[in-house]
Amino acid sequence: MSVVKLLSAAEADAIPAVKAVFDDIKATRKSDFINNFWRALAHDPAHMRRVWEQLKAIMAAPGAIDPLTREMIYIAVSSANGCDYCVHSHTAAARAKGMTNAQHGELLAIIGLAAQTNHLATALQVPVDPEFSF
Amino acid sequence: MSVVKLLSAAEADAIPAVKAVFDDIKATRKSDFINNFWRALAHDPAHMRRVWEQLKAIMAAPGAIDPLTREMIYIAVSSANGCDYCVHSHTAAARAKGMTNAQHGELLAIIGLAAQTNHLATALQVPVDPEFSF
Amino acid sequence: MSVVKLLSAAEADAIPAVKAVFDDIKATRKSDFINNFWRALAHDPAHMRRVWEQLKAIMAAPGAIDPLTREMIYIAVSSANGCDYCVHSHTAAARAKGMTNAQHGELLAIIGLAAQTNHLATALQVPVDPEFSF
Amino acid sequence: MSVVKLLSAAEADAIPAVKAVFDDIKATRKSDFINNFWRALAHDPAHMRRVWEQLKAIMAAPGAIDPLTREMIYIAVSSANGCDYCVHSHTAAARAKGMTNAQHGELLAIIGLAAQTNHLATALQVPVDPEFSF
Amino acid sequence: MSVVKLLSAAEADAIPAVKAVFDDIKATRKSDFINNFWRALAHDPAHMRRVWEQLKAIMAAPGAIDPLTREMIYIAVSSANGCDYCVHSHTAAARAKGMTNAQHGELLAIIGLAAQTNHLATALQVPVDPEFSF
Amino acid sequence: MSVVKLLSAAEADAIPAVKAVFDDIKATRKSDFINNFWRALAHDPAHMRRVWEQLKAIMAAPGAIDPLTREMIYIAVSSANGCDYCVHSHTAAARAKGMTNAQHGELLAIIGLAAQTNHLATALQVPVDPEFSF
Repeated sequence: MSVVKLLSAAEADAIPAVKAVFDDIKATRKSDFINNFWRALAHDPAHMRRVWEQLKAIMAAPGAIDPLTREMIYIAVSSANGCDYCVHSHTAAARAKGMTNAQHGELLAIIGLAAQTNHLATALQVPVDPEFSF
Repeated sequence: MSVVKLLSAAEADAIPAVKAVFDDIKATRKSDFINNFWRALAHDPAHMRRVWEQLKAIMAAPGAIDPLTREMIYIAVSSANGCDYCVHSHTAAARAKGMTNAQHGELLAIIGLAAQTNHLATALQVPVDPEFSF
Repeated sequence: MSVVKLLSAAEADAIPAVKAVFDDIKATRKSDFINNFWRALAHDPAHMRRVWEQLKAIMAAPGAIDPLTREMIYIAVSSANGCDYCVHSHTAAARAKGMTNAQHGELLAIIGLAAQTNHLATALQVPVDPEFSF
Repeated sequence: MSVVKLLSAAEADAIPAVKAVFDDIKATRKSDFINNFWRALAHDPAHMRRVWEQLKAIMAAPGAIDPLTREMIYIAVSSANGCDYCVHSHTAAARAKGMTNAQHGELLAIIGLAAQTNHLATALQVPVDPEFSF
Repeated sequence: MSVVKLLSAAEADAIPAVKAVFDDIKATRKSDFINNFWRALAHDPAHMRRVWEQLKAIMAAPGAIDPLTREMIYIAVSSANGCDYCVHSHTAAARAKGMTNAQHGELLAIIGLAAQTNHLATALQVPVDPEFSF
Repeated sequence: MSVVKLLSAAEADAIPAVKAVFDDIKATRKSDFINNFWRALAHDPAHMRRVWEQLKAIMAAPGAIDPLTREMIYIAVSSANGCDYCVHSHTAAARAKGMTNAQHGELLAIIGLAAQTNHLATALQVPVDPEFSF
């Protein structure tokens, strides 16, 4: 249960600033599905637009990292930050972009291993080697 | 400053269980450099071996995710977990595996964006869409 | 589902050390509602008292930060720490103290932006400017 | 030590896309000081611009939360996320906007208390009261 | 709802590499119960084996820290990392190993206090005393 | 470098509310050493007293968990929360209370393993088994 009411499709359509962003999400994703994250964020249309514009630029535009890898990096950050919603939505997105079971399995292994060595390096307070300095 | 003394090369060589792991790290990485993480972990050779065996299996063996992408995922988790040492060591590893400035820039953008939407989804307590459920 | 049984009103009333704290919570808040957090914590009455005494001193006493702002700061920390319960309870508390939709929207925007730049500063390992040092 | 080279003033001036953002930062803040965060981020001018545009809109534009409170919320998130750089830079910003020692002391008390109850609610897995649901 | 399908007992039995680990879990724990964590992890049998081998070595083998204390430390880390599943499973494990209500209460108090002073030390950026250095 | 000035011994002695807490810390610990955490917190004597009173009650009073185990739990939480200061100060405290190298090694192994399975359970979104429910 969200701490705000999720906007229905009809409510979103009635607010031009919301409708404009929802229309762009649909066009960019070539899908009529608007997930709950946007329905919750839509209470502040200017903020929603800023978040969406970033997401479009960072996750959907051509770049040096392929779209599937971007989603796997997103899952990694979301897992470390403990965001249940984001783990679900970006795992779905990664699958839609072709993530195989083997890739998912390796992604999970890296996330778990990194968490383990992150905690060990912190618990030991290991000093950064001069070789890693810029 | 670490909470344990970092083992010197001479000290490591004098303990067969440590020397064996250090030798395998050098052989696997084709380099004589042993970074501080292992010098701190070496106080518990059995534990160090378990961590190293995992790292070798997950980060160095052939698989469905290429080695550079694995390092970028590692950086993402390490940043979210706030591990300074790991950010330094795995950024160095990613560069050694060919990460370009453009890839690094995009990686940073994804990490920042994911953190932002992670916090928004949590602060809003957005319920998971049934479409994302298994 | 909690990892401990939540104390019912009758069970709480039967333990003088619990009843005393519950009575103070009710008197301070001018409400008969005791939320689940206290019903779970009541298994250790001395600890519950220490937590409540702090909460009363920090959140309910007069001070240099107004009560609504205190709740918004509480929501910010709770979101960053991923505490679902606390996000819900303190968003409700902030609303009860007059938080408007506009304030909530701006609070969310700050939380998301801070998370983004926090992760960027960590992923880049930006050194603290001497100008910020004490 | 950063994982990227910090751009000097001369290097920044030589790249029009960087200079334009730095000039806007200086004009907005009415100060010639560009802190290290931007010098590190400047390697990706398009990304830096997106981060800066958000920061300007969220932290510097008129709104329903006053500028000092915004900085205190920023400090709260940065502390919970363990971002040393951000704690330093936003504590300096809060002071520049008039944060008193009394306000700083209360802010710290709220951050510590929230962290305590966040961890307790999670360790107890307290279920959200229906009264807090939307 | 998991992001992967949980393997049923019949499905697990049909995959020799999974059955071997499940059999070892049952033998080590002297119980036929396989909890959901393993049913989710079983999609990658080699990874599951590595995680289980570590768990067996660290949590079930004789050592310098008694088994109940190990579970309490596990609960502490899981609470700080916000892992709902792990808080539940390791609180159940600690109880099965004899954790009393008094011990649970004290564990919770330490977790909450540590979180509070962790956040205060970070928000204040307290420098490490030379007396604590190695 | 702290974001506040650390109070010197002379400055602390000149403020009765600070001197009273410092004297109690010295008497409780049977040592004249006051570590930086308290020198930073002393700017808000009432808050410092609340934190100290809790620490004394939770960490120094007799109880169901022995003093060394309490410190090890504290290290576990501090590592997960990424508090460098706290890892240093509580590792020193654990050693002063008799933590052996073997115990430290096992503590580190548990912290790392818990972090790994915490991240895996979150990345997989494993549902809590009904067997673990209260």
